[in-house]
Amino acid sequence: MDKGKLLIESLPYIKKFKGKTFVVKFGGSMFQNEILKDLFIKDVALLSLVGINVVLVHGGGKDINYYLKKMNMEEKFIDGYRVTDDPSMDIVEMVLSGKVNKDICSRIVNEGIKAIGISGRDNGLIIGDRMNGPYGNVGEIKIVNTKVIEDLLDMDYIPVVSPVAEDESGNALNINGDTAASNIASALNAEKLILVTDVDGLYKDYKDKDSLISYIDSKLLKKLVDEEKLSGAIKPKAMSAVEAVEDGVKNVHIINGNEAHSIILEVFLENGFGTMVGRNENE
Amino acid sequence: MDKGKLLIESLPYIKKFKGKTFVVKFGGSMFQNEILKDLFIKDVALLSLVGINVVLVHGGGKDINYYLKKMNMEEKFIDGYRVTDDPSMDIVEMVLSGKVNKDICSRIVNEGIKAIGISGRDNGLIIGDRMNGPYGNVGEIKIVNTKVIEDLLDMDYIPVVSPVAEDESGNALNINGDTAASNIASALNAEKLILVTDVDGLYKDYKDKDSLISYIDSKLLKKLVDEEKLSGAIKPKAMSAVEAVEDGVKNVHIINGNEAHSIILEVFLENGFGTMVGRNENE
Amino acid sequence: MDKGKLLIESLPYIKKFKGKTFVVKFGGSMFQNEILKDLFIKDVALLSLVGINVVLVHGGGKDINYYLKKMNMEEKFIDGYRVTDDPSMDIVEMVLSGKVNKDICSRIVNEGIKAIGISGRDNGLIIGDRMNGPYGNVGEIKIVNTKVIEDLLDMDYIPVVSPVAEDESGNALNINGDTAASNIASALNAEKLILVTDVDGLYKDYKDKDSLISYIDSKLLKKLVDEEKLSGAIKPKAMSAVEAVEDGVKNVHIINGNEAHSIILEVFLENGFGTMVGRNENE
Amino acid sequence: MDKGKLLIESLPYIKKFKGKTFVVKFGGSMFQNEILKDLFIKDVALLSLVGINVVLVHGGGKDINYYLKKMNMEEKFIDGYRVTDDPSMDIVEMVLSGKVNKDICSRIVNEGIKAIGISGRDNGLIIGDRMNGPYGNVGEIKIVNTKVIEDLLDMDYIPVVSPVAEDESGNALNINGDTAASNIASALNAEKLILVTDVDGLYKDYKDKDSLISYIDSKLLKKLVDEEKLSGAIKPKAMSAVEAVEDGVKNVHIINGNEAHSIILEVFLENGFGTMVGRNENE
Amino acid sequence: MDKGKLLIESLPYIKKFKGKTFVVKFGGSMFQNEILKDLFIKDVALLSLVGINVVLVHGGGKDINYYLKKMNMEEKFIDGYRVTDDPSMDIVEMVLSGKVNKDICSRIVNEGIKAIGISGRDNGLIIGDRMNGPYGNVGEIKIVNTKVIEDLLDMDYIPVVSPVAEDESGNALNINGDTAASNIASALNAEKLILVTDVDGLYKDYKDKDSLISYIDSKLLKKLVDEEKLSGAIKPKAMSAVEAVEDGVKNVHIINGNEAHSIILEVFLENGFGTMVGRNENE
Amino acid sequence: MDKGKLLIESLPYIKKFKGKTFVVKFGGSMFQNEILKDLFIKDVALLSLVGINVVLVHGGGKDINYYLKKMNMEEKFIDGYRVTDDPSMDIVEMVLSGKVNKDICSRIVNEGIKAIGISGRDNGLIIGDRMNGPYGNVGEIKIVNTKVIEDLLDMDYIPVVSPVAEDESGNALNINGDTAASNIASALNAEKLILVTDVDGLYKDYKDKDSLISYIDSKLLKKLVDEEKLSGAIKPKAMSAVEAVEDGVKNVHIINGNEAHSIILEVFLENGFGTMVGRNENE
Repeated sequence: MDKGKLLIESLPYIKKFKGKTFVVKFGGSMFQNEILKDLFIKDVALLSLVGINVVLVHGGGKDINYYLKKMNMEEKFIDGYRVTDDPSMDIVEMVLSGKVNKDICSRIVNEGIKAIGISGRDNGLIIGDRMNGPYGNVGEIKIVNTKVIEDLLDMDYIPVVSPVAEDESGNALNINGDTAASNIASALNAEKLILVTDVDGLYKDYKDKDSLISYIDSKLLKKLVDEEKLSGAIKPKAMSAVEAVEDGVKNVHIINGNEAHSIILEVFLENGFGTMVGRNENE
Repeated sequence: MDKGKLLIESLPYIKKFKGKTFVVKFGGSMFQNEILKDLFIKDVALLSLVGINVVLVHGGGKDINYYLKKMNMEEKFIDGYRVTDDPSMDIVEMVLSGKVNKDICSRIVNEGIKAIGISGRDNGLIIGDRMNGPYGNVGEIKIVNTKVIEDLLDMDYIPVVSPVAEDESGNALNINGDTAASNIASALNAEKLILVTDVDGLYKDYKDKDSLISYIDSKLLKKLVDEEKLSGAIKPKAMSAVEAVEDGVKNVHIINGNEAHSIILEVFLENGFGTMVGRNENE
Repeated sequence: MDKGKLLIESLPYIKKFKGKTFVVKFGGSMFQNEILKDLFIKDVALLSLVGINVVLVHGGGKDINYYLKKMNMEEKFIDGYRVTDDPSMDIVEMVLSGKVNKDICSRIVNEGIKAIGISGRDNGLIIGDRMNGPYGNVGEIKIVNTKVIEDLLDMDYIPVVSPVAEDESGNALNINGDTAASNIASALNAEKLILVTDVDGLYKDYKDKDSLISYIDSKLLKKLVDEEKLSGAIKPKAMSAVEAVEDGVKNVHIINGNEAHSIILEVFLENGFGTMVGRNENE
Repeated sequence: MDKGKLLIESLPYIKKFKGKTFVVKFGGSMFQNEILKDLFIKDVALLSLVGINVVLVHGGGKDINYYLKKMNMEEKFIDGYRVTDDPSMDIVEMVLSGKVNKDICSRIVNEGIKAIGISGRDNGLIIGDRMNGPYGNVGEIKIVNTKVIEDLLDMDYIPVVSPVAEDESGNALNINGDTAASNIASALNAEKLILVTDVDGLYKDYKDKDSLISYIDSKLLKKLVDEEKLSGAIKPKAMSAVEAVEDGVKNVHIINGNEAHSIILEVFLENGFGTMVGRNENE
Repeated sequence: MDKGKLLIESLPYIKKFKGKTFVVKFGGSMFQNEILKDLFIKDVALLSLVGINVVLVHGGGKDINYYLKKMNMEEKFIDGYRVTDDPSMDIVEMVLSGKVNKDICSRIVNEGIKAIGISGRDNGLIIGDRMNGPYGNVGEIKIVNTKVIEDLLDMDYIPVVSPVAEDESGNALNINGDTAASNIASALNAEKLILVTDVDGLYKDYKDKDSLISYIDSKLLKKLVDEEKLSGAIKPKAMSAVEAVEDGVKNVHIINGNEAHSIILEVFLENGFGTMVGRNENE
Repeated sequence: MDKGKLLIESLPYIKKFKGKTFVVKFGGSMFQNEILKDLFIKDVALLSLVGINVVLVHGGGKDINYYLKKMNMEEKFIDGYRVTDDPSMDIVEMVLSGKVNKDICSRIVNEGIKAIGISGRDNGLIIGDRMNGPYGNVGEIKIVNTKVIEDLLDMDYIPVVSPVAEDESGNALNINGDTAASNIASALNAEKLILVTDVDGLYKDYKDKDSLISYIDSKLLKKLVDEEKLSGAIKPKAMSAVEAVEDGVKNVHIINGNEAHSIILEVFLENGFGTMVGRNENE
């Protein structure tokens, strides 16, 4: 009986989110094991089946590192950006768009859901520019042409997007996955951007595990960032969340992919997991 | 976390039943209290929201009795049929199509789901004939014109059907609700006919509460009926189930409406409640 | 030959009204005999066949009285409103939505026209409030959600509407049929509201049978009402006409249902029957 | 009141013919005066307005004669065929497709109905061959490509067709209007072919004005033709009627265009005018 | 290999003009021989095949003259207008709409392209008024109803339009073909109006064959006209070009139909033939 | 003028192939220089623009070799198959689906044509099995699910397909590009399979450069193969051609990608380049 009650608890959320768009960003290497990864894919399939338009954006840092090392290429980071010369850009793209992307796509299709894996270079989805600075082919996003994503969603495909852009001459650019997801969510006027991480969410005080924030508005969050209250690793995610909300995404969620079904629980149950970022309605 | 697991357990069933048609027959007066009735309506809304085409057929015996008594009309049953003279046919139709039907429709709409209440007389849905015998306006079904139901489903309405038919001269006929549901399910080539009752299902031996049948094929069930193994009250429902399966409905379920969420649990979880009747695949 | 001339006389009207919406209000008990009722139904079928979107709203006072009496319930009117306690509300709804509505629907379908009978409670068509005063469940209309009517018209059904509304908690309300029709016509931006009565139309002086008004603008009509020039019975209909025109309905017609084919003659012939109310174009 | 009765008499016919195709052949010069011609156009407009797909095929012999004479070209007939050399073929085509066709089209449009005038040469509608014999550019029909007519009907245009065909090299051919209409009607699987003439119909004995045939089956009619019972002028029309019915047209009507509204009366009233030819159902 | 290069040269133009509308005006009698006429038809077919919406407007002066003469009618021009009494109007219409129009239509269809020949009188395409002056039935254009052209283009037909209009009483009017084409192009908001003539284009100084203008803006062109710099024959074409550009057509081309494939070369190759008129972008 | 003649020469071919499907297989590394590669992409864009449904299948052997070498992986071929252990399978997939595929896609998009790059693993396009033998992850094709390609073509995308399949457990498989293209062409019932190579076509005698075959039927070609008349490198392509024709592809073309515009010339001009393989119509 309790099972039924639980299923019914999801009723208002299914109604509310039917036909809405969720952009979900996750790092494939983030999951502690294959089982968790598989559960996550099933969760995504469920979102899609109940009528939500799901767009997946993935990362792939670990795999990139593995292959760079294998080819005796040096990993180098400046200001948090992976310095990407031409040969390593090739590796970055091949790993992201050729390996990680297709593996995820294959897993979703095995759940009986239609999926196509694309990169930001397909049909001019993400046009960028090389960043100023000594970062090589690291790009910043200039334009997001959502046409290809809208076409795929119209035909009931889950678009799986690898975070590779190109400049106007057609050269591949290495872009940050969270930023890509945030920009795509804004361009699609998405209902939700969901950032799947390996922490439970944002903390008021990152040393105090009891200070997890359940809801915060983007203005307050920006203040927390500015006042350096957030741990280093979560800061860029917090910034992506702030920007997405400011650019029109209704809510951003930061959840823990290593808690089984965290995404489903966050979306469909009254007391979700993780942190939800929203607009300050008083403004 | 268990909550998530539970929700995910429904994944293959949602996938399987998306776009399929379920005809659900229930007696409004069957529920022990308003809370159970409300939960049932929510369950139906959930089925609809996840993409199942739901057709509701209702009964209303208790309400009919109440009004007949109020008007000093005598209740009379012969061979299990309510003998229905012209004045009582008017009461039967008014109660079913005017009161019960509109109340159910209103409740569904309050869940945010589109619904229209019709009777078998709308757009010639059910054409019948007076039965031979001393039963008055009791009818047997000759033709089911599913056009009106298909049109309503096409526009995402739940059709709520009251079991009143008419003969070819346009006179109202009193028909059995289970039979109406079974005929509509066959005519629609439905995936499931779900008969919501006030017992847990069929029993191999109705005196032994431990002998509940989880699955039975229609041929075996017919044998049980012929050998008089079933209790009197459940026999007509068993016969409706047998007929529906023989006429092309994939599965018939007999479940207990007074167990909260029984319909959801039966449809979406691996170990359902109640009794499922299917085709003998060896034939 | 004269027959042909007559048919051709209707040409400009068919052209003019093709695809337009007519809301027709009539009282089933108003017709003096079955033959007139049948002719009226045929007239409605003809309107529908030549491409007019017909919405029927019916009354049912006589039938309600009959059943209230049979159940020993007292009929009581205050200020012209039927005082409607809970038990009599049940009778009102059952008679209107369960009996009268389905009989009309059946007659139309027998003319080969698609029809569905609904009440103001189906899909939230008419949301009202209890009126202030000692009238019980008498309601006044707050919102008309025309979605369900538009959907049915889109699929070529004649919606047959019984004048029962509900409040926001889902309780049935007794509303005036003319007011319901007038409100539905306004909400649909109808071309015409046709009030079928048992008099020939409005009279300048209701004692002088020769003073029948052929055309009047809504402003003048309002003045006639204010100056108490109209007979008591026709006053509320005149008020409904004034309101409908003020709320955007192009013309309101008051015609006599007991003159055979009066509706067809009024709509399709140059010198119609009855009274037409229009906007004062000089304002 | 009788007017209404009359309009209602047309109800079953409107219902029956809605969405069906009528091919109407008439000779513009046939009408005794402009008033009759105008009435005929209004009749056609009415057919179209009530949902019948009307295809008009016209003649134009009188006008052709007038222009031939004006250009001092000799009229010559052999075996009933107008001997058509190249210069006279030009005149035939110009008069039919350029003058008569456009005049008719203009009149229909002035009734508020969409119409396009085409000839058998537009989009390859009628492909023919020169007849064997001394007839010049007189053609017999080989192929009717109804695509262009179906497209125009789909977009609610009345196609007005002038009876000019072309051979496979693109040369214009003079074809008989009745034969063209009959062939188009067969190719469209039309409900009716209506031949508008200047006589009241077929007579059992053409000298006896009381012997007008109201209905005849195609087999019997063929016999009458073979036995030379019909007057010379009507014989080819009778043959066209026989062929059309044999090739799948449901009914052919031969009516008098100089009786006002004869087409409307024949189609919409129980006791039509003229002669109807049908299939012998006993075969 | 050069062949391929040439085909590829057309790529950007095909891309640019796909789905755009070109109105092409030409005089059938203008071509020096049948071969050139045939090549022109093939060119038009190619434009249509690569996705351009082509509307053809034709002239027919030579043929008109031929028939007028044959009927001993006097040709008379005042102020450049053919004085058109009623009998000659009949000839004008018959030749244009009945002969020239159908011949062109037939040739296009023989290239495998769908085409329908209409005149300005079909479905009220061009409504005009008699011009003031002693010109008889010469008309000036008042309204262009593009509905019929849009419908035909929607169904992939090339509309072939003969320049005959009608007044509001339905009388045929003789209108200038260039003006008709220019007005249709404006009403359709066309990408291009292409005027096919028998000269290579406009000349700065019409006596100097080396002064051919490749591009000119409409303002400058107007000035040339006002200053009488253009030869008499080309002046009305220049005025049509100026008006079309001022009324919203993007470009007007004046090309020589007697240079084989001039239209294709002008549209698809970088260095076109003839003169292109455009808007002055600095305004 | 010759330019126009040339463009017009393509008219019948554009007409013939409009809406038909061409599968084009090419090896990106095959082109001798960037200019030729660019011209090829433009040719493909032109095919698409004139209404042909183009599906691109690419190879990538050279790039694979480059990366394998860079990672010190040994290249090993047995029976002509690249022996592919798990680590080299990763490289194969990354290079094909991540690098080559996205580069081609980007180039097409830069021509203004919609394109999406997918692999055989997207939406289950190509399901295969490991081949028997010591070849590792070399696969043979079992099922081609064309749904994803049909969906993309429906929305006017050029699908760019990398020849990577997966087995039923979701493991990537290395498949031959020509075989993939041939199988996709058969499954799509394609009009043409075009194999772009670095030779001019098939030779009757591969040592005699004058013996180029312009047309050959599949039966004769099979005989040539069986009789070992073809050079080693072209043999597998010949076999793919034979199989494609036998499985329903209308024609297979073998052309030289290093001859500029060979594909356009072969498709659109009367005397094409290369070798065309067709069905023996006498069978």
